[in-house]
Amino acid sequence: MSMFDIFKRRGSAPVARERLQLLLAYERKSRNQPDLVGKLREEIMAVIARHIQIDHDDVHVRMDRGDTTSTLEIDIQIPNARSAALAV
Amino acid sequence: MSMFDIFKRRGSAPVARERLQLLLAYERKSRNQPDLVGKLREEIMAVIARHIQIDHDDVHVRMDRGDTTSTLEIDIQIPNARSAALAV
Repeated sequence: MSMFDIFKRRGSAPVARERLQLLLAYERKSRNQPDLVGKLREEIMAVIARHIQIDHDDVHVRMDRGDTTSTLEIDIQIPNARSAALAV
Repeated sequence: MSMFDIFKRRGSAPVARERLQLLLAYERKSRNQPDLVGKLREEIMAVIARHIQIDHDDVHVRMDRGDTTSTLEIDIQIPNARSAALAV
């Protein structure tokens, strides 16, 4: 099973849409770390938005902060019309 | 199995180091897309480097470009001394 089969198990996106998925995990040693994953989330979303026209309704973001691991999931559906603009 | 167990199956990082892992998958419709994942890679690495002091030897990056899916894996080991600086 390749690393990314985990994406496919969610069922591939309907044909008409493209999709961008991101998983990030930060394994920390101490509890008093500042919220690195929160900062990364804002800046990574800004990077993605520079390249893909994002519609708020098409974006799902989930963050979890465990004892030693913080995680971030970003799932963006890209309607085909907008992704065609990328081809230029 | 949670989404992030896939990270753990690689064996958790030695106690002395912290770790940041990122998986990105871009499901495309057409072949002539410009290399979006390549661009995202450079800019996401720059975002991470703003928050974590990265030593070139501690970073593993893998990119795959399939027919319909491009993938990016970034795996960064963070020696504890440098991560303590984050706590400020």
